[in-house]
Amino acid sequence: MEGEKKQVERITAREEDFAQWYTDVVTKAELIHYSSVKGCVILRPDGYAIWENIQRNLDRLFKETGVENVSLPLLIPEHLLQKEKDHVEGFAPEVAWVTLGGEETLSERLCIRPTSETLFCDFYADIIQSYRELPKLYNQWCSVVRWEKTTRPFLRSTEFLWQEGHTAHATEEEARERTLQMLNLYADFCEEYLAIPVIKGEKTQKEKFAGAKSTYTIEALMHDGKALQSATSHLFGDGFAKAFSIRYSDKNNVLQYVHQTSWGLSTRIIGALIMVHGDDSGLILPPKIAPIQIMLIPIQTKKEGIVVKLQEWENQLSKVFRVKADYSDKSPGWKFNEQEMRGIPLRLELGPRDLQNQQMTAVRRDTGEKISIPFSHLEQKVKELLDDIQDSLLQKANKHLENHIYEAKSYEEFKQLIASKPGIVKMMWCEQENCEKQIKEETGASSRCIPFQQESLGEKCPVCHQAAKKMVYWGKAY
Amino acid sequence: MEGEKKQVERITAREEDFAQWYTDVVTKAELIHYSSVKGCVILRPDGYAIWENIQRNLDRLFKETGVENVSLPLLIPEHLLQKEKDHVEGFAPEVAWVTLGGEETLSERLCIRPTSETLFCDFYADIIQSYRELPKLYNQWCSVVRWEKTTRPFLRSTEFLWQEGHTAHATEEEARERTLQMLNLYADFCEEYLAIPVIKGEKTQKEKFAGAKSTYTIEALMHDGKALQSATSHLFGDGFAKAFSIRYSDKNNVLQYVHQTSWGLSTRIIGALIMVHGDDSGLILPPKIAPIQIMLIPIQTKKEGIVVKLQEWENQLSKVFRVKADYSDKSPGWKFNEQEMRGIPLRLELGPRDLQNQQMTAVRRDTGEKISIPFSHLEQKVKELLDDIQDSLLQKANKHLENHIYEAKSYEEFKQLIASKPGIVKMMWCEQENCEKQIKEETGASSRCIPFQQESLGEKCPVCHQAAKKMVYWGKAY
Repeated sequence: MEGEKKQVERITAREEDFAQWYTDVVTKAELIHYSSVKGCVILRPDGYAIWENIQRNLDRLFKETGVENVSLPLLIPEHLLQKEKDHVEGFAPEVAWVTLGGEETLSERLCIRPTSETLFCDFYADIIQSYRELPKLYNQWCSVVRWEKTTRPFLRSTEFLWQEGHTAHATEEEARERTLQMLNLYADFCEEYLAIPVIKGEKTQKEKFAGAKSTYTIEALMHDGKALQSATSHLFGDGFAKAFSIRYSDKNNVLQYVHQTSWGLSTRIIGALIMVHGDDSGLILPPKIAPIQIMLIPIQTKKEGIVVKLQEWENQLSKVFRVKADYSDKSPGWKFNEQEMRGIPLRLELGPRDLQNQQMTAVRRDTGEKISIPFSHLEQKVKELLDDIQDSLLQKANKHLENHIYEAKSYEEFKQLIASKPGIVKMMWCEQENCEKQIKEETGASSRCIPFQQESLGEKCPVCHQAAKKMVYWGKAY
Repeated sequence: MEGEKKQVERITAREEDFAQWYTDVVTKAELIHYSSVKGCVILRPDGYAIWENIQRNLDRLFKETGVENVSLPLLIPEHLLQKEKDHVEGFAPEVAWVTLGGEETLSERLCIRPTSETLFCDFYADIIQSYRELPKLYNQWCSVVRWEKTTRPFLRSTEFLWQEGHTAHATEEEARERTLQMLNLYADFCEEYLAIPVIKGEKTQKEKFAGAKSTYTIEALMHDGKALQSATSHLFGDGFAKAFSIRYSDKNNVLQYVHQTSWGLSTRIIGALIMVHGDDSGLILPPKIAPIQIMLIPIQTKKEGIVVKLQEWENQLSKVFRVKADYSDKSPGWKFNEQEMRGIPLRLELGPRDLQNQQMTAVRRDTGEKISIPFSHLEQKVKELLDDIQDSLLQKANKHLENHIYEAKSYEEFKQLIASKPGIVKMMWCEQENCEKQIKEETGASSRCIPFQQESLGEKCPVCHQAAKKMVYWGKAY
């Protein structure tokens, strides 16, 4: 048939080769296209629309907590980047440098922002004078560039889209509260909108952000058992404030340093969305974040009344849901494949028999279940189905996470688990970096976080046998 | 009083020094802050919120015409930029070059996008195969960098935010229709949302975009009589398609080049918003685009009932309008100044006498008019007032535009008008670049556009006395 020249091709099975399955899905569901620029991808309409939905919801949630959006420059003069010692050590090796502007060689080179702490600090130093102007709760939506050696779409790329919040507070206590408030906001957003359950915790000193006092993280578990750091929230204390001289006069007119935080979530989360929910037919998108929630497909376009009735429903349902209909001359099978590949949560089919019975046939993307729905209850039932798909995806992901957390009492047991069981392993730790490094070198697992929900699994660190201080989640990660 | 340490300072009068007035407004209304990065400004919350409102409305209007958003890389490899001869000549002198990535010198340098025609072409060459995939109607919201020697906030800066639409069509006719459709969309948006009337026309060959076949423009007139190019829409024909080999197979399976367009509107339009509507008290924002539409101010915060009643109204009005209330201990006069400086369209005051009479005192930002409104009609009357402010701003700007368009039959008359009357001068033209250059050199006025609405003012070009071909709008411009 004419319309089917471009076939929906089969993708690699998920259990056969997870990495290839992922690459197949991101390209064949047309989320991304590889660009001519090394390490950078193009977000195609479906890929970008997912990000727009994430952005719209997250932005609203931010603003409800008093956050305001601003826009800072893309370029950072070298002297600014160098003001905070740990920060420059962490980022200088991976930035892109602009050395020529127009036709002149620059007297000071500029880097493309890898993150904007230094610019926000420079800005805050200028505008903050009095305790009355605190807190400052600014955020920006932008892209950043980090010169990565190996890249994968969404997961690690030279340029990526994100939001970065940067706040300044009068006290460290208030800053810490904001750090945790934003971490919780991210966690709730992932569960409620993306149907991704996460583990909340603190990064070890080795894994924390360059320049931070503490870094908090949410970690999600992918279908293949690897972890993915999904968002982070950093407490800076007054380290940056001292480097950049950001001071305010308090109620007694005494100059004090501010206490700062930053927090970010990036397009990386789309990688998590794919790897948590997707299956062998392609993407599965939770209804709350899906660019299209319902795909309407006529079964026989030439049969009298089918297209007209479907168009009526398209108009009606579009008032409440994000709907697309495909009236083209492609075969129903081709359209089903496309809807499945793109992860559209619900398909509504209208065939001659359906029309006769005054009903539609709904097909759930997550379970494949078919349900006949009378026209008289269509809108209500579709709403229920979408809600149920959203809930089911979260439940399924929750179960997957619970079933892939293991516990190691000895280092031998730990090594066996890491080698044989994809997932996360809990183990006690002495808080010394040597043991953390040894574990990473010997097993490939890194410390994901020191979870807020601590348990005692023993008195000693199983690696060095010194006193255990914390229980840590370990795992292989993206 | 404690809260008033930071005074709302007087700004330079508009008629005294328009340039200084503009600088005062953008900084004192806290739209921007000068950054440490030469030629780049920070958009502060109020400045960015205006852009968010522009973006939200424009994005919806784009999508209603079938446009989809994508995201392309920030960096362009040099060989891509060089593919289209006119384009590279136009842009190469003003780009920023990345020559180092991480710690390695790049084998091919990358420029930060000054505009993304080349990247879109490279993308389209990959993904377009058949007539069935046309048209492609893509847009992206991003920032671009152009190495400007002299910069002014919003009007000309090294980095600025914008949207750039890039479309590919099967025929030149369809591409031309899209070019004009988007120009009309911009014009309607400026009138309806920003209350800025514009003149639509075509740029001369000298002033057209580098690589375009035709460039269409909307030109607005600022309060000081200078013109500002407010958005452009370009028809490329198949020039880029040939340079990048973007071909599709038509219904007869014959390979054809696509025909392309691009169109953009940037944060420059915020400069127009300020310079069309502002006055000696600061900004005046049209209600449809104002981040805050109504400012509620209690006249005596300590008087019983005032704050409580105002909070009730804040809750009520927030359901329909964008509202802010200021309950701080600053004086009412300070708050009035702030609301005026920030251009908030309507102020609602509640004092003891108002409360007694069950009314509020509304004060229009545009006219200063005071109106007492009974509580019983508040919501309805506020809506009417906001609508009226929106309409009045457009009418006033329309009148200003009409009153500043002059007509020159001779070149002498033209020179006198340009020297003595701020505004736009209509004059016939032979279509030769020599005359255009001479006019610019001798008078400082440039051709703004060849308006769609042509008139005949004579048979000859007043400069060279050869046959006149077109009537052109000339003026000094930002």
